[in-house]
Amino acid sequence: MKNDLGTILKPLEEPLSLVEREIRERLASGVPEIDEAARYLFDLGGKRIRASLVLMTAGLGGTVPEGAITLAAASEMIHAATLIHDDIIDQSIMRRGSASVPQKWGSRVAVLLGDFLYTLALDMALSVDNSRVYSVMVGGTKSMVSGELYQLHYSNIDNITRDHYYRIIELKTARFMAACTRIGGEIGNMSEAECGDLYEFGMNLGFAFQIIDDTLDLMTDSEAIGKDIRSDVRTGKITLPFLFLMERNGESAGLLRRYIREPEDALWDSIMDLMRKSSSLDTCIGISKEYVERAVGNLDRFPESRSREMLLELSSFFVSRNF
Amino acid sequence: MKNDLGTILKPLEEPLSLVEREIRERLASGVPEIDEAARYLFDLGGKRIRASLVLMTAGLGGTVPEGAITLAAASEMIHAATLIHDDIIDQSIMRRGSASVPQKWGSRVAVLLGDFLYTLALDMALSVDNSRVYSVMVGGTKSMVSGELYQLHYSNIDNITRDHYYRIIELKTARFMAACTRIGGEIGNMSEAECGDLYEFGMNLGFAFQIIDDTLDLMTDSEAIGKDIRSDVRTGKITLPFLFLMERNGESAGLLRRYIREPEDALWDSIMDLMRKSSSLDTCIGISKEYVERAVGNLDRFPESRSREMLLELSSFFVSRNF
Repeated sequence: MKNDLGTILKPLEEPLSLVEREIRERLASGVPEIDEAARYLFDLGGKRIRASLVLMTAGLGGTVPEGAITLAAASEMIHAATLIHDDIIDQSIMRRGSASVPQKWGSRVAVLLGDFLYTLALDMALSVDNSRVYSVMVGGTKSMVSGELYQLHYSNIDNITRDHYYRIIELKTARFMAACTRIGGEIGNMSEAECGDLYEFGMNLGFAFQIIDDTLDLMTDSEAIGKDIRSDVRTGKITLPFLFLMERNGESAGLLRRYIREPEDALWDSIMDLMRKSSSLDTCIGISKEYVERAVGNLDRFPESRSREMLLELSSFFVSRNF
Repeated sequence: MKNDLGTILKPLEEPLSLVEREIRERLASGVPEIDEAARYLFDLGGKRIRASLVLMTAGLGGTVPEGAITLAAASEMIHAATLIHDDIIDQSIMRRGSASVPQKWGSRVAVLLGDFLYTLALDMALSVDNSRVYSVMVGGTKSMVSGELYQLHYSNIDNITRDHYYRIIELKTARFMAACTRIGGEIGNMSEAECGDLYEFGMNLGFAFQIIDDTLDLMTDSEAIGKDIRSDVRTGKITLPFLFLMERNGESAGLLRRYIREPEDALWDSIMDLMRKSSSLDTCIGISKEYVERAVGNLDRFPESRSREMLLELSSFFVSRNF
């Protein structure tokens, strides 16, 4: 099994480079600060998962339909907009191992660049002559923003429940991935049933992706992933592994509350110790594997093809990254 | 001539109250901080010019077409989104005489509420079954954001020219008003020529509106208008009256640069003294009157109606506010 993203995405090398080109061409605003910040952000890289999902699902019919590159580019731009605004909201200093856009250019540029990316991307989606695509894209974007709202209030230790957590990641991550995979079906002129399956596929994959992400964050040190997970916790983002930990170990909620008030390294180490002993991380990995299995099942009706194979490889990759 | 906005908008009392209701219903997110901040923002009032333009132009055919209330509400929500994000960008403490949203709730809530308003409004526009409306709304929103980008770079004293100023206000204000007036035509099922005239009408009105606003700011003290114009200048927003002043008085650019570096009251008073002597404010008022005349001309082809009368009254009101 391929467990390296670069190898899995190899067949998309050419379309993905067209996506990068389209992003950079569209982003040229003529305003130096904005152009510089935008170039910086996209040069930081990123996995381009959303663009890949659009391209792969669009390719299930055998050919790459018109508009696929533009929509793949638009999906990455909307994703980038949420990242920049997130970095303002969370006052993040780092993004992908480098200074975040608000840290480097201030919140003026960051607010505007985010707004610019949103409106530009929605305008691009509109340029593709398919009204269904458009409403799927807007719906996915609206969900993502709603997810951020919910997270603001419901992800902190006093409010969060497992229901809230699932609601947040559905809105914040799963529905937009589902929008991307459905969009591929729509431009590929697939049937309503096929588009529905692709939507479910994206949804299940999105749940798996976010749960594994929240879990891996706690298994790796900050430097390796280029963001500061502890500051997530400190600003009150409680994720699924913590929910299991608190259910399984009566002492842990008190320690976590104390850490949020007074973040001390030794305390963090004790919490992580309890985390390992409670097997909460394994439980989360198990749950994301179940989501991946459901996602794989959503592809049943599609005949063998290079694109289908890539979608399956990508799904397995999500839950087999080297821990 | 009616020169009180309340009197002019009196016939719209009922539809405008439906617009208010729709805004409040749609905004209920279930997240306490966001709902509170949104209610606060819309309770601050505002002239609801954009909603009125949608309703008036939509009414030119005699009846109020379906979707008019929703689109009027969406236009105010998009406008509100730009105001909130503006207040983060400009670090404004005041808005309409009260504390601004970022000042009261912090930039976390302000960034998210703005994003929420944008995506919600675009989704509402999509719910009205008219694809033209939708692309006009997205185009207008994109222009508004581009205007903010341009303003960021090109409105400061080192870069600004009259061309830049007109470009900024076209993007930031005129095109969105034009979108509102065209949308009225589209849902009123008017001809392409009529919709085109309504677009031009909104564009001319938008230029008039922004120029008179930038001029009035300098004729009134901050408390009366509820925002701090001097801080606009200090953060580098040079408007048309200043451009005329600098063209007409060789000494003024130096004083203005000094004021931007060291904002002293006495210096401001001297600049305002030169402003009055240069007649720059009168020139600007004259220019906005010309735009209003053009706007009035754009309504030539429309037969007498209550809506047409209101549009004419509103246009005259813009340039006859009590100075």
